[in-house]
Amino acid sequence: MYRFKPELRIPGPVPVPSQVALQMAKPVINHRGAVFKEKLPEVLTRLQPLFGTENPVYMLTGSGTAGMETAVSNLVSPGTPVLCLVGGFFGRRWVELCQSYKAQVHIIDFPWDRGVDPQQVAEFLAAHPEIELIFMAQNESSTGVLNDVEAVAKARGGHQALLIVDAVSALGGTPCEMDAWGLDVVVSASQKCLMLPPGAAFIALSERARAYLDRCDASRYYFDLRKYEQFLERGETPFTPNIHIVFALEESLSMLEAEGLERVYARHRLMRDMTRAGVRALGLELLVSDSDASPTVTAVKHPQADGFRQSIRRKYGVEFAGAQGIFAGKVFRIGHMGYATPLDVLTSLAVLEIELSKYGAAAAAAERVMAAQ
Amino acid sequence: MYRFKPELRIPGPVPVPSQVALQMAKPVINHRGAVFKEKLPEVLTRLQPLFGTENPVYMLTGSGTAGMETAVSNLVSPGTPVLCLVGGFFGRRWVELCQSYKAQVHIIDFPWDRGVDPQQVAEFLAAHPEIELIFMAQNESSTGVLNDVEAVAKARGGHQALLIVDAVSALGGTPCEMDAWGLDVVVSASQKCLMLPPGAAFIALSERARAYLDRCDASRYYFDLRKYEQFLERGETPFTPNIHIVFALEESLSMLEAEGLERVYARHRLMRDMTRAGVRALGLELLVSDSDASPTVTAVKHPQADGFRQSIRRKYGVEFAGAQGIFAGKVFRIGHMGYATPLDVLTSLAVLEIELSKYGAAAAAAERVMAAQ
Repeated sequence: MYRFKPELRIPGPVPVPSQVALQMAKPVINHRGAVFKEKLPEVLTRLQPLFGTENPVYMLTGSGTAGMETAVSNLVSPGTPVLCLVGGFFGRRWVELCQSYKAQVHIIDFPWDRGVDPQQVAEFLAAHPEIELIFMAQNESSTGVLNDVEAVAKARGGHQALLIVDAVSALGGTPCEMDAWGLDVVVSASQKCLMLPPGAAFIALSERARAYLDRCDASRYYFDLRKYEQFLERGETPFTPNIHIVFALEESLSMLEAEGLERVYARHRLMRDMTRAGVRALGLELLVSDSDASPTVTAVKHPQADGFRQSIRRKYGVEFAGAQGIFAGKVFRIGHMGYATPLDVLTSLAVLEIELSKYGAAAAAAERVMAAQ
Repeated sequence: MYRFKPELRIPGPVPVPSQVALQMAKPVINHRGAVFKEKLPEVLTRLQPLFGTENPVYMLTGSGTAGMETAVSNLVSPGTPVLCLVGGFFGRRWVELCQSYKAQVHIIDFPWDRGVDPQQVAEFLAAHPEIELIFMAQNESSTGVLNDVEAVAKARGGHQALLIVDAVSALGGTPCEMDAWGLDVVVSASQKCLMLPPGAAFIALSERARAYLDRCDASRYYFDLRKYEQFLERGETPFTPNIHIVFALEESLSMLEAEGLERVYARHRLMRDMTRAGVRALGLELLVSDSDASPTVTAVKHPQADGFRQSIRRKYGVEFAGAQGIFAGKVFRIGHMGYATPLDVLTSLAVLEIELSKYGAAAAAAERVMAAQ
């Protein structure tokens, strides 16, 4: 049964504003017709400031993982030496993808409760000039770590490697300056900070990454970015797209543009800080230190994490997420991304307070953070 | 600009009933939560009668081509000898997919205005016992040919080859009896006869095809059906799904079940027969003979096909499709699938009549077909 009002506080998919959701119910139009061919490039161009790029942004119908595989299948040939920076479940996903494309995979494992250390990356690269591709997550939503992708990009120095970034749970919630920072591929998806339902992935490439596509000989067809490039030039996608995501994206971009990206990012930082202050006030332990903390999701340690969050869901209809990978059962995650506000953080904290019989304790701390803004 | 009322008569994406469209605007729910985990397998099970199978039907987020690549990437290893039956644009797509997965591709080319000839297939297979996989389209929407997949399945006799069928523009509009006919893989998509927006593909496998998955060593991750199988056992998909397509499919299946599949198929045959009678009465030439004609789309020859249909779209807001491949510019296509009725066929014919100044000519012929039902 649906709760009277669903209160999703998971790190995606996240609630969709009703003005955006209604776009999903619009009449179907011809994806090869004039209306759509005008709309698609116009809407995708408006994503460029979120990516921080002047290069084209492509849309494909699929999940965030489809976007990640698009990056891998267009860059990795059998035997390509790659480096994966792993600090969580989604860092590991890069490893699995690269392995399934038969890359020669090198891995640096970082502690899952800490960010990627650019210094270690620099040292590894100095010893491995042959590495062609580096894969990492910007926001590791499995743990609530925000990695410093700019610092990793800089840590390359003069090294040849391209840097490929999973920004699925980051883009639109935290700055991404692809061109200025020197990121080569950035992948995101609809159902996180873009405030859309699941159904589409987005990807942008640097000029250097673009030049790579023709030398890659991995088997690919649906994910072949050269097709997307060729079709976007005339306002189309190579395969029937999720046309409604384009309608909905037009609406959600209008909301983000009206708020202003800087304020959108500040809202996410505020929600992070409020969540962390509240959780601490309840005597619960945060998984990640302040310096590495994600603006879109916060992981909290709890000895019976799954029973605890299920009890909260049952009683109050507020849905937190469990943990993935090594923290499964020991951590729960509070999503605060996309169509989410500081008031939503207060209710996330309120149900924790009630469940722990610490009435008002977290609210006081979080409200002080909010008032200081 | 949108027309006041869009009148899509293309072979997909097709109009979506408003009760189905509204499902697309529902609140987002957790794709790993109890509600979705109950709903997904329940809804997919209700697709089994449309596939004519007792085996599971899997959903993945992507277009019909993503579904086709799922079949190829799970079955084709480098060097696998395959046979592609090509009679149109989508038959050719199988060739391109198999080539990009480095299969050893054999092709039988059939005339694009005629169906696949099972006898030729039987003869080819007798001379090529090594063929492991046969790929074909059930409904070649680029030309409006319905291929007899049952006859091709029979034509195999005792030959080992699996038969893989693109039923993207067929499933739900014409019978598919996967188990009874001996089809090994059937692929379809949301935006055709299932009356849903674009965004998801569906695929079912025979036991023989299932046994193939573990020996295939193509690079695949997002399309790896073993993951979908494993996750569906607990009511989930491996990657964030298009959850709204599941809500919408629940509604459209209710409509199809209420009408009854036999009557759904009869409605499509009636629309085909009305369209063909009307087109003939206008003195236009049909691309395909009666015996090979598709119940979901009809191709019509016209010396200035694109100018003709664009003029109709501009003046009356009725949108026909152009042709793909060798008939581009010489043929236009009238879609009559999914949420379409005999009355829609009458208005398709009416705008042809007006444009040709043959007022009422096609209507008379088509109405007689309708009345004879």
